[in-house]
Amino acid sequence: MINVAVLGYGTVGSGVVEVINTNREIISKKAGDEINIKYVLDLREFPGDPVEKILVHDYETILKDDSVKIVVEVMGGVEPAFTFAMKALGRGKNVCTSNKELVANKGPELLKAAKENNVNFLFEASCGGGIPIIRPLNSSLTADEILEISGILNGTTNYILTQMADCEWDFDKALKTAQDKGYAERNPEADIEGYDACRKIAILSSLAYGKTVDYRDIYTEGISAVTSMDIEYAKKMECAIKLIASSRREKDNIYALVTPMLVKKEHPLYSVNGVFNAVFVKGNMVGETMFYGSGAGKLPTASAVVGDVVDAARHLGEHIEVSWEDEKLTLAEEENSENRYFVRVGAKGDDTDKKIESLFGSVEYIFLDGIKETGFVTGNMTEKKFNEAYDRLDEKITRIRFKA
Amino acid sequence: MINVAVLGYGTVGSGVVEVINTNREIISKKAGDEINIKYVLDLREFPGDPVEKILVHDYETILKDDSVKIVVEVMGGVEPAFTFAMKALGRGKNVCTSNKELVANKGPELLKAAKENNVNFLFEASCGGGIPIIRPLNSSLTADEILEISGILNGTTNYILTQMADCEWDFDKALKTAQDKGYAERNPEADIEGYDACRKIAILSSLAYGKTVDYRDIYTEGISAVTSMDIEYAKKMECAIKLIASSRREKDNIYALVTPMLVKKEHPLYSVNGVFNAVFVKGNMVGETMFYGSGAGKLPTASAVVGDVVDAARHLGEHIEVSWEDEKLTLAEEENSENRYFVRVGAKGDDTDKKIESLFGSVEYIFLDGIKETGFVTGNMTEKKFNEAYDRLDEKITRIRFKA
Repeated sequence: MINVAVLGYGTVGSGVVEVINTNREIISKKAGDEINIKYVLDLREFPGDPVEKILVHDYETILKDDSVKIVVEVMGGVEPAFTFAMKALGRGKNVCTSNKELVANKGPELLKAAKENNVNFLFEASCGGGIPIIRPLNSSLTADEILEISGILNGTTNYILTQMADCEWDFDKALKTAQDKGYAERNPEADIEGYDACRKIAILSSLAYGKTVDYRDIYTEGISAVTSMDIEYAKKMECAIKLIASSRREKDNIYALVTPMLVKKEHPLYSVNGVFNAVFVKGNMVGETMFYGSGAGKLPTASAVVGDVVDAARHLGEHIEVSWEDEKLTLAEEENSENRYFVRVGAKGDDTDKKIESLFGSVEYIFLDGIKETGFVTGNMTEKKFNEAYDRLDEKITRIRFKA
Repeated sequence: MINVAVLGYGTVGSGVVEVINTNREIISKKAGDEINIKYVLDLREFPGDPVEKILVHDYETILKDDSVKIVVEVMGGVEPAFTFAMKALGRGKNVCTSNKELVANKGPELLKAAKENNVNFLFEASCGGGIPIIRPLNSSLTADEILEISGILNGTTNYILTQMADCEWDFDKALKTAQDKGYAERNPEADIEGYDACRKIAILSSLAYGKTVDYRDIYTEGISAVTSMDIEYAKKMECAIKLIASSRREKDNIYALVTPMLVKKEHPLYSVNGVFNAVFVKGNMVGETMFYGSGAGKLPTASAVVGDVVDAARHLGEHIEVSWEDEKLTLAEEENSENRYFVRVGAKGDDTDKKIESLFGSVEYIFLDGIKETGFVTGNMTEKKFNEAYDRLDEKITRIRFKA
């Protein structure tokens, strides 16, 4: 029997208990031994809940119990999660977490502590919820130089953008519906401004390139400025607008950003809709791959956490090597990256076209019926050159990058 | 330094050499030691090829060399691959293979031999080429009861069906183009009749359910009967026709089959086009996931093989448990499975409709402009009931299952 302690009995924590109870037999078989939840740590009481009997309020109880081999940290936030995780590792316990804040801020330190104590720090659920992506990056795509990781990593924003496209709603209505359905929080800033996706792409990029990508270095723009009209133009171009969190290698530079992008119909990310997430990975040998699934939600996220528990159980007394060094990876300046851009201007006619072409060179025009606007797509140009030209443009409305 | 021997210097074998040479530094770092190809076994000579210096013709040379820790079997076919693999395992060498014939026919025996000798038998490249799917099934989706695996597992047939839909070609023209481009073999039977996909779904199902699914038990129908007109109807229904290799759990029964299916626009498999492959996996906790990528091709397949080499190198002296028992899994009779069917009849009018409704009950009609035919979609019915009714239908042309 392998004893597990769950820190935090919120959505994911109760999901972990549910997954282990529902699939007890399968999980024990795969783990090679019975997985037993010995403690649940939470400050609250849960009278009448079956978990009541194993509820503890003091972390020391768990820490001191040497029979607990695996600690599941699903509290969220950097502290006290970090202190608790470090203490567990220091006592020779494995730690499995769904906490992207913790991993994005403290990943290398925790991995180092895990290695020193010959245990494991596993975090499959921190990116992409139930989608297996961390383990494939660490254990499967090991023969490749990773050229690009681009993900739809936030279900809330993808739901909003999908609803805007399918129901022709504006942003506010789509956000309100997402909140009513429980897909968006009352304070939705972390999702809609891209902060959540930013932390996740920082984690995935650190694993892909082997050095620490600091999420604070990643240019991040959310979806709150995306309008119904932008989406009309996207449809006309046979594209979808998606919040893309991306890092890519160009020669010796690595660029990373989070921003709404126009994704062409032919790209596998185009048809990732609603609350689903996907991670597109391009390697120099394997070519294009994509991993798709539920990026959030109680049971999918808990499934990923319990998958880590099984992995920890299979590797008791043995550290699984993870290629993520403490050394910081310096991202290239986004202004040097080359992109194509879609631009909207609130005027129409020969003078407008002349001005556009004098600034951007040859462009492709996109017109919507009955709209007194000019939409156009630039050729490939650096962000710096684009911004210089865009600044000088009259009556500009918006600009959106194309996903390469 | 970890010495590797490659058995077979064909497409995949030369790809393995190329991947290791191209990404030497990354691969050695991930493996924790330098990966060195010490021998290549082939009956042929390769004058002028760099591999010439390490080419051997006698397998005994490799077998007797205790410094060779990993044997890469990429010859194809059951024999002599099986004998060679068993001998390698018996001598304490790890075996990595891309050979679906070998794995589908001899998987449990090879896994047993690997366990007894405390080494590993790895076969990521045997299903879905470069797509990481074997390791995610074995190591990531371990908290779930797998309810369904449905894959587009053959690039040749998917290319043909995509071309038929995009270019409005008939089957023969699409097949000929696939052959001219090297996507289909001169004798394309194994691909177009579904035999290749059948072996792959047998392997994936064995891993998912933990017991041996014999590919000979799986009902298998290829795509050679699919016509341009079928595809016109599919488009009208907002569906694509895909060769789906599928196994699914319904209560205590497991059904498996390979057959062309109508896949709705909303399903993630719908937009998997051209030579790309994808595996859709549904778990009782994680929900819907999908793994997408190049299902064949020299470098993607070699990338997966070398990923296994890295995994073997990381686990020298340690057997990775694989849940695949020798015990045979008895598949449920396909005639008891419930499906919806699309049917074409070469007649039109009230009498035809009356006959159809008397046989199938309430149906949904699909008409194409200017075609003297009746197309209809049945409700959910068992294969047995459907076949009884279909047999009694006059002027029937074809029937295609809907993907549930």
